[in-house]
Amino acid sequence: MTDGGAAAAPGARAPAHGSDPLAVVAGGGRLPLEVARAVAATGRPVILFRIAEEADTPPDDGLESHTFGYGEIGRFLATLERRGVRRIAFAGTIARRPDLSSLAADLGTLRRLPRILKAIVGGDDTVIRKVLALFEAEGYEVVGLADAAPALLAPQGPIGALAATAADRADIATGTRLLAATASFDVGQAVVVAAGRVLAVEAAEGTDAMLARCASLRAAGRARAKGPAGVLVKLPKDGQDRRTDLPVVGLRTVEAAIAAGLKGIAVAAGGTIVVERADAVAAADAAGLFLEGIAP
Amino acid sequence: MTDGGAAAAPGARAPAHGSDPLAVVAGGGRLPLEVARAVAATGRPVILFRIAEEADTPPDDGLESHTFGYGEIGRFLATLERRGVRRIAFAGTIARRPDLSSLAADLGTLRRLPRILKAIVGGDDTVIRKVLALFEAEGYEVVGLADAAPALLAPQGPIGALAATAADRADIATGTRLLAATASFDVGQAVVVAAGRVLAVEAAEGTDAMLARCASLRAAGRARAKGPAGVLVKLPKDGQDRRTDLPVVGLRTVEAAIAAGLKGIAVAAGGTIVVERADAVAAADAAGLFLEGIAP
Repeated sequence: MTDGGAAAAPGARAPAHGSDPLAVVAGGGRLPLEVARAVAATGRPVILFRIAEEADTPPDDGLESHTFGYGEIGRFLATLERRGVRRIAFAGTIARRPDLSSLAADLGTLRRLPRILKAIVGGDDTVIRKVLALFEAEGYEVVGLADAAPALLAPQGPIGALAATAADRADIATGTRLLAATASFDVGQAVVVAAGRVLAVEAAEGTDAMLARCASLRAAGRARAKGPAGVLVKLPKDGQDRRTDLPVVGLRTVEAAIAAGLKGIAVAAGGTIVVERADAVAAADAAGLFLEGIAP
Repeated sequence: MTDGGAAAAPGARAPAHGSDPLAVVAGGGRLPLEVARAVAATGRPVILFRIAEEADTPPDDGLESHTFGYGEIGRFLATLERRGVRRIAFAGTIARRPDLSSLAADLGTLRRLPRILKAIVGGDDTVIRKVLALFEAEGYEVVGLADAAPALLAPQGPIGALAATAADRADIATGTRLLAATASFDVGQAVVVAAGRVLAVEAAEGTDAMLARCASLRAAGRARAKGPAGVLVKLPKDGQDRRTDLPVVGLRTVEAAIAAGLKGIAVAAGGTIVVERADAVAAADAAGLFLEGIAP
């Protein structure tokens, strides 16, 4: 799907695969660079805007890249304008909520402070929705990663060499139902279920910390199984804004699942980004772990 | 409410405050001794049966006490019979699921092994229900702690000097709704909610580990508030068998909540045991933490 390059009306929904430049705002982790490269591979110009406090990937020689602190929102918006960027994608992790004092460092930020302040009050989803609204109010279109880089999405079915068994599917179904039950609470998006027993539910700690906890439970004899047992089920929340908060799994997730003694990982096909896919699949295959995209 | 001492028909529900002896099977923690003492204070004979692998309170000079390993169920049942005990209460934590090999150590266990094996398959609630059924099938009545030692239950309203504010009550309501939504999944019974945001959901790790996680989140800058924020909501699950699995809070819970920077603890009035109440209240008061029983 390509866009002929016609200028989109402000606020209009346009195909994400276009020829106009896309800004990728980069938080932490490998994802921003993978997104930027996947977009560039479609022939679309990409500019990487690294958040100074969060981004930890080195600048890519083949990509235009800028770095901005939380206190430089004014300079960031001016750069977008100067470079003719109207569409923005957000990628990567935000480990810390921005400190208010760092936000007040430039005039651009000061002018928008009331709206930014509002954005920082509330749960995670709320913050993200309000940040989106902030950019949309400035006339930008926020493009989802599923639209910007569909090649990174999990396909349906086994992604590596192994597939879930019938027993694994029962655990996946339990996890799916539990996540549906908690979706309206702005909690995490992942659970670990082993033989019908819910070992862990993710909230503010994140998936990696939850998996580390499962490894500890196993080490302490609190998980019964001798061999690998349990499935990580990680899904988008109902009502989650998929433009900014798609679940992401990657090599680190696979390694954490192996360390927790799990049998596999189930993610939403078409609704989950798989980063470092080749490495993640190789590690899963080597450990006998399944990695599977399930129907949403 | 006292029982005149008439022999109860097998399986019949009888008042828990009776004059016939009550066996308190003791897992870990302070609770078993507090239960035994509370029962003894009503004038009823009490025999403490310490589980060797779990019980960590010293034998009480004022109470008859026996210690049995998981491999000695036959000897345990023989002792119950010899001492004329027909009613049993379970108290304290079970940190480990019994290892099957240790269960096969005596003939009494061997004879019941098929039923015990069945009891060990399934989630926590399932195990407990099946263990209950096991004892009931042997002709014993399992007495709940709320019946055996009602003096230990949380009252409604503030238990210490402080009370929840309106903002705290909103967090309590959120936690209550989340726990109701997950009740059918045999998950934990506690959540931490701060200013509408769900910080942590308990599953297999237990409440203390969940609170330690909240302390870490705060230390890592993942919780926003500068001052105390957040409420631990700990409730019985819907459908939970209150005879064996009432939520318990005590000094350790209060200390963990203080370390996590919380504002308070909400428990179900009449549905939660408060152990070491004087110490727990003193610690909460000193730290400015509320501890409150809420209507179930």
